[in-house]
Amino acid sequence: MPELIKTDILDLLENKKYSSVKTELEKLNEVDIAELFDEVSREDILKLFRLLNKDVAADVFSYMDVPTQQRIIELISDKELQQVLNDMYLDDTVDLLGEMPANLVSRLLKNAPKDMRVHINQYLNYPDNSAGSIMTIEFVDLKAEMTVAEAFEKIRATALDKETIYTCYVTDRFRVLEGVVTVHQLLLADRDEKICNLMDTHAIIAHTHDNREDVAMNFSKYGLLAMPVVDLENRLVGIVTVDDAMDVLEEAVTADIETMAAVSHTEKPYLKQSVWQIWKNRIPWLLLLMVSATFTGKIISSFESALAVFPALTAFIPMLMDTGGNAGGQASATIVRGLALDDIKMSDILRVLWKEFRVSLLMGVVLAAVNFIKIILVDNLLLGSNVSTEISIVICITLFSAVVIAKLVGCTLPILAKKIGFDPAVMASPFITTIVDALALLVYFGVASAILNI
Amino acid sequence: MPELIKTDILDLLENKKYSSVKTELEKLNEVDIAELFDEVSREDILKLFRLLNKDVAADVFSYMDVPTQQRIIELISDKELQQVLNDMYLDDTVDLLGEMPANLVSRLLKNAPKDMRVHINQYLNYPDNSAGSIMTIEFVDLKAEMTVAEAFEKIRATALDKETIYTCYVTDRFRVLEGVVTVHQLLLADRDEKICNLMDTHAIIAHTHDNREDVAMNFSKYGLLAMPVVDLENRLVGIVTVDDAMDVLEEAVTADIETMAAVSHTEKPYLKQSVWQIWKNRIPWLLLLMVSATFTGKIISSFESALAVFPALTAFIPMLMDTGGNAGGQASATIVRGLALDDIKMSDILRVLWKEFRVSLLMGVVLAAVNFIKIILVDNLLLGSNVSTEISIVICITLFSAVVIAKLVGCTLPILAKKIGFDPAVMASPFITTIVDALALLVYFGVASAILNI
Repeated sequence: MPELIKTDILDLLENKKYSSVKTELEKLNEVDIAELFDEVSREDILKLFRLLNKDVAADVFSYMDVPTQQRIIELISDKELQQVLNDMYLDDTVDLLGEMPANLVSRLLKNAPKDMRVHINQYLNYPDNSAGSIMTIEFVDLKAEMTVAEAFEKIRATALDKETIYTCYVTDRFRVLEGVVTVHQLLLADRDEKICNLMDTHAIIAHTHDNREDVAMNFSKYGLLAMPVVDLENRLVGIVTVDDAMDVLEEAVTADIETMAAVSHTEKPYLKQSVWQIWKNRIPWLLLLMVSATFTGKIISSFESALAVFPALTAFIPMLMDTGGNAGGQASATIVRGLALDDIKMSDILRVLWKEFRVSLLMGVVLAAVNFIKIILVDNLLLGSNVSTEISIVICITLFSAVVIAKLVGCTLPILAKKIGFDPAVMASPFITTIVDALALLVYFGVASAILNI
Repeated sequence: MPELIKTDILDLLENKKYSSVKTELEKLNEVDIAELFDEVSREDILKLFRLLNKDVAADVFSYMDVPTQQRIIELISDKELQQVLNDMYLDDTVDLLGEMPANLVSRLLKNAPKDMRVHINQYLNYPDNSAGSIMTIEFVDLKAEMTVAEAFEKIRATALDKETIYTCYVTDRFRVLEGVVTVHQLLLADRDEKICNLMDTHAIIAHTHDNREDVAMNFSKYGLLAMPVVDLENRLVGIVTVDDAMDVLEEAVTADIETMAAVSHTEKPYLKQSVWQIWKNRIPWLLLLMVSATFTGKIISSFESALAVFPALTAFIPMLMDTGGNAGGQASATIVRGLALDDIKMSDILRVLWKEFRVSLLMGVVLAAVNFIKIILVDNLLLGSNVSTEISIVICITLFSAVVIAKLVGCTLPILAKKIGFDPAVMASPFITTIVDALALLVYFGVASAILNI
């Protein structure tokens, strides 16, 4: 939305030109109107809400952020609340209930239509990360023996309340899903054609307890607009629509990226999180990683005397640790993403290991060679350091080994984590770095002991 | 797709039970059939392809991976090729042309329908990352003065060739976009209603040269199924559909995650990339980071004498570097993702800095305190080290400063990178780590010099 329109509307509202506000609002998308509420003063929220066209009020309300929703619920009358709840989709209502404080939840439930209350209770029984928790019950159901003409009649009669009408679901009298037919097919078919002759009986479906991320991934894999959700008896209980699937994927990716950077995930956008909340998401991981780094320190301490004899060894510790950590991080990030996209399966572990092993050999050789040349030409000749050939060799062998170890650890741990039911993303960069640091130092001092006769 | 069906079909094919293969194939989704081709021997690819139902052959072909597509094009006759190209959507054909070697490209163009060739040339002129490059031209266009009944007639007559029919586009005689109307609206409206009274004249649109990621983000923001793409004169030239938008988002996220782990992005899935390709994506970054670590080494070298006097200082270098790097990585990953989701805008830089500053103070105090206690209780009492109080203080002050500096650097650099037109994801973990390492060591030795009188 152009900033100009936004400030225009806010100015009009300030100057009490309400009919102009109404006209301007009609030009805007519901999502943009909801964003507008972020900028309005607390006093004007109710005023602006009451200027909304009745048709879009519930939609705009669904898109608002939680504090604004709460403020509006506190201010509007029971009658207005009933109107909004009546027009809202069930999945949005369930989300709303999950976010509101207890006193408002009871007011909401009291004002929700009776049949909705039944469905809400059913919803609240699905686990948070299940397909059931993101489905909606507003879909068009048809019968196999209907004709196309009858189907269109049914669609017309009920379309107003349905979140999507473009995919229709054919059920028998026990509500068991028999097939799926699209409005596209219906439009192309003869008006007297029977639905049973048109419907696809092998549609991609989800079960209520399926993991919602897996379900969302199937939307992108199969290019779907909606997917039916069935219970254990194959009865159709709801559908998931593509917009909700996109939200799930977006959220999952954010959680993955945060986990890979050792941050616990919160649903709220960054700028809306309190300092306290951000701190809470990050401090446990940092503490854990800091304490783990003690081992690395211990390894160095135990070689204190060697470092005192060959002080040049100390200067290369950061480079060896960083390069090992980065090499491992490259492998783990690639594998974690591959697992998330289902490009890599757990059974691929040996193929992955073999691939990473060859990559790491190539990489280790090049890095070690470049490093050797750099020590001779840049450090010794240009910068006047005095790194002996023995020490250079120790550093290059360590670098080579650290890269190979890092790649192997980096590609194995995410797959193993998934195998035992953990989030593979936890096994990304910071943890790999800590493990590789310790291993690299052990190799470093081991090789140094052997070559330098410490 | 259940593995069982897959092996079943492959067995049937092996045993030349072709009619059974045909029956089994009809039960499968096009995407799954395309996957099946991955498992078939090179000799059987053509056989399996010819067993496909004519209706789905082009669709299945679009979903195959590039080597399989290439193999099939090499094997089939010109007539078969024309059939496939005729049934394929333009955007898929353009993708195909981009992937094939030159000799096959000319054969493809020779066999493509003539009007398609014109469009293909037009497509190839859009930049790779533009909305134009992902749009399709198969949409339904209506006229403002049509009635609903006439609109349905037009939809019925053309629906077979259109990628989506659920959103229709109203254009004037100069092809300028006037509005958008959905089949949902048409189904609910009176048959004699004029389209101009139904259409939405404020639909979300894209311009041909808009960045395709921005366009895709709008799909998720506004919950769209399709978006019209117009040229500079506001003429409708194509539409983007939600499945292509999802692919763009998936690809963009993969690229972001890889960039944040210092890996160049390639479109191919990991297991299909050669060892050489993977190596090429990773080695430049590792080399660059390795050479950057030289500065860190230089800083340590210049304090060699101090480290010789207080060898305990060396043991804490990894912990200080890692904690600083991790603290910075947390901030940068959060900010990079926030920028990608448009939750954080460039103008928010001061708000972000102020937030991170407060978070880092809280964090630094806790980490320093825990570390102090750890040194006293664990290192000295339990493990029998002998870290003096002065050194402990040096370490804790450095830790505190490193965390604060890391957070500030980590949150600022991605935003600045975006401001000057770079990919913010480059400014994530590995680079932040390298910068923070150097800064942390400077603080470390500075504080050590002051307190320990070196």
